[in-house]
Amino acid sequence: MTHILGLDPGLATLGFGALRCEPGFGLRSADRVEVLDFGVIRTPAGTDMGDRLCTIFDDLHDLLNTVKPDLIALEKLFFYRMGNTIAVAQARGVIALVLAQHKLPVVEFTPAQVKQALTGYGNADKLAVQEAVARELSLATIPKPDDAADALAIALAAWFQR
Amino acid sequence: MTHILGLDPGLATLGFGALRCEPGFGLRSADRVEVLDFGVIRTPAGTDMGDRLCTIFDDLHDLLNTVKPDLIALEKLFFYRMGNTIAVAQARGVIALVLAQHKLPVVEFTPAQVKQALTGYGNADKLAVQEAVARELSLATIPKPDDAADALAIALAAWFQR
Repeated sequence: MTHILGLDPGLATLGFGALRCEPGFGLRSADRVEVLDFGVIRTPAGTDMGDRLCTIFDDLHDLLNTVKPDLIALEKLFFYRMGNTIAVAQARGVIALVLAQHKLPVVEFTPAQVKQALTGYGNADKLAVQEAVARELSLATIPKPDDAADALAIALAAWFQR
Repeated sequence: MTHILGLDPGLATLGFGALRCEPGFGLRSADRVEVLDFGVIRTPAGTDMGDRLCTIFDDLHDLLNTVKPDLIALEKLFFYRMGNTIAVAQARGVIALVLAQHKLPVVEFTPAQVKQALTGYGNADKLAVQEAVARELSLATIPKPDDAADALAIALAAWFQR
């Protein structure tokens, strides 16, 4: 039995999705995967950067103490737009700090790797990935908000590649 | 009487310089400025990023508890080379976190502003700035390493502009 916590790192919105996974005697169809929790840590834009980083630090510590994950699955940091990148990298530094303080193993995936793992197609669109998340986790509806659904997808990718 | 801690943020080397400043009845020549401490927090390249961020977190907390600064003076983050920038921004995120946890006021200076404050010339070379630091602080030699001298220069810039 493994607790996997998927994280979709960001400064304004940090998505998380926690799974409880039990292997099905080598048969993926017999795996038992349950959602423990999902949601987002939000830090309001326009507030002080230091305060926002404190919120991420405190809330992520609380989340780890609650979920008690065995493994963290993280989306790899990519750099599309310079301005935003610095803010996200600062948040990412605080996330990496907290994970190291809890001495947790971390696996990282690119967005294409997550899409590939969930749908078999590295260029799948957002909705196809979200539908796969709902299907794999036997959820009646797509988890909201998007960042939480992304985090569950990242956690599932980590489970599938174990 | 004011304790000012200057910081030159980096991942591999975080320079610090702590001053104890007393105003001279409005006369800058009568100010009393003493060095409390200076040096660097080092995190070895090639070691795990999370461990490096933990070292910065722990050592900076210890430094703040020892120096008990009233004001932090920080070099503004600039982005010359992309690869290095992300690593520095992650370290900077942890530094901003720790300063916010101590609820310390922060002033920021560009390198040109520090040069201007110390030498009267925004394009001054490194040695001219370091000589000004030694002169202002009545030090027989230029403080080493360079990142510590830079941090003292940043702290002096904050004192001069008060």
